[in-house]
Amino acid sequence: MTLTLTPLPDIPLIFAGDDLPTIILGSLERLGLDLQEGDLLVIGQKIVSKAEGRLVNLVSVVPSNRAIELATETEKDPRMLELVLRESKSVLRTRPGTIIVEHRLGFICANAGIDHSNVAGEANDEEEWVLLLPENPDRSADCVRQRLEEASGVRLGVLIIDSHGRAWRMGTVGVAIGVAGLPALLDLRGHPDLFGYHLRITQVGVADELAAAASLVMGQAAEGTPIVHVRGFPYPLREASLGELLRPADQDLFR
Amino acid sequence: MTLTLTPLPDIPLIFAGDDLPTIILGSLERLGLDLQEGDLLVIGQKIVSKAEGRLVNLVSVVPSNRAIELATETEKDPRMLELVLRESKSVLRTRPGTIIVEHRLGFICANAGIDHSNVAGEANDEEEWVLLLPENPDRSADCVRQRLEEASGVRLGVLIIDSHGRAWRMGTVGVAIGVAGLPALLDLRGHPDLFGYHLRITQVGVADELAAAASLVMGQAAEGTPIVHVRGFPYPLREASLGELLRPADQDLFR
Repeated sequence: MTLTLTPLPDIPLIFAGDDLPTIILGSLERLGLDLQEGDLLVIGQKIVSKAEGRLVNLVSVVPSNRAIELATETEKDPRMLELVLRESKSVLRTRPGTIIVEHRLGFICANAGIDHSNVAGEANDEEEWVLLLPENPDRSADCVRQRLEEASGVRLGVLIIDSHGRAWRMGTVGVAIGVAGLPALLDLRGHPDLFGYHLRITQVGVADELAAAASLVMGQAAEGTPIVHVRGFPYPLREASLGELLRPADQDLFR
Repeated sequence: MTLTLTPLPDIPLIFAGDDLPTIILGSLERLGLDLQEGDLLVIGQKIVSKAEGRLVNLVSVVPSNRAIELATETEKDPRMLELVLRESKSVLRTRPGTIIVEHRLGFICANAGIDHSNVAGEANDEEEWVLLLPENPDRSADCVRQRLEEASGVRLGVLIIDSHGRAWRMGTVGVAIGVAGLPALLDLRGHPDLFGYHLRITQVGVADELAAAASLVMGQAAEGTPIVHVRGFPYPLREASLGELLRPADQDLFR
């Protein structure tokens, strides 16, 4: 079966309090696209964060001693690092220009996912606004899913994604940070392959694979679109959460 | 623009010497799909390796002292570890059941990408055959691309992919191991975003994002299909190679 990923056109700039399900349904209608059983929506985290009012003005942030220390190590703004610390469980690595943390949500990423770019601030203090990740992306995804399921009468999945850098490889890729209604990790253990062997690969990060696919069509720059409709996901929908994709520290050789 | 990924049907079992371009063209014809300018083909590494005769019978492998040592650490077959060492530049991590190496091709992966499963051997010694990665996946991808371009008269890209585990996250995802004709790393540095800021994200691993997308539709088990046709890749084709995606060791905080 063919997998199709369609970026939704004409998504407006999003502000705190905006209702994403309404915006999604409006765009689907303009596109002439009816939601069908098993369809998925993939949403970039920035518009979820904006709708949830996760903008912070750095002017309001007083850095702790630890943040000031890290600012020296990383050559970054101490107020930014204060927010990174508040959003993190632990700091994994620092060097000039880089801070890698375990986010309070459990994944490893740079800057705790806090973002300077694409934030609507005042023209004369635009550098002061930053955007935190959604409070609880699984819950955000589930809220959107429930609203879209009510409106359409069909079973759907919703994924919230961000772009993360990686160990060993250059370039960011889209990854899941919130999951509702579709498997995050697919467990193939015990399935025989064509020759009856046990498979080498036993667990597949299907939500991350979908996140990467959607990220590809979202783009990153001015022409990007933050919502992608997906049809043809090849696995049955089920209840799930991001936790499936988080490797426990004691099973992680690279922390 | 919509991105569509279509697994090619009826791909036969592949044996050494089989001609993948002929097989791909036959499947496209049965599907009624004409190649168009900018289309891509994504191919799972196993069938490329098989066509190139990269099967090795472990019975023929004499393990070195180092392989025997690693076999104790990892609780794996010393002959398998001998092949892993031959295919690797260095060993990054070992523990029971796991060996992570820098492959001679430059990427980090488990078992040097050597695979027990899905290998056609004799019924009574099936556990003895293993499959190495293609000798030079960039070159393999380019050979397929040239043949398909000659047959179709249009410009195409070809990606060879494998599934790799990751630091920090559970589950494998599809990643590029050979690239021909499409960008591997997309450089957005200097592009302003919607508000004229410089982007936080400056380099995107688009070939890895496409690999993940294709992996999703290939599946992993008996019902899987190892070749995916892609239409609607949103970036201009250009000459490229896997090297773009390999993070130099001195820029890698996680080795």
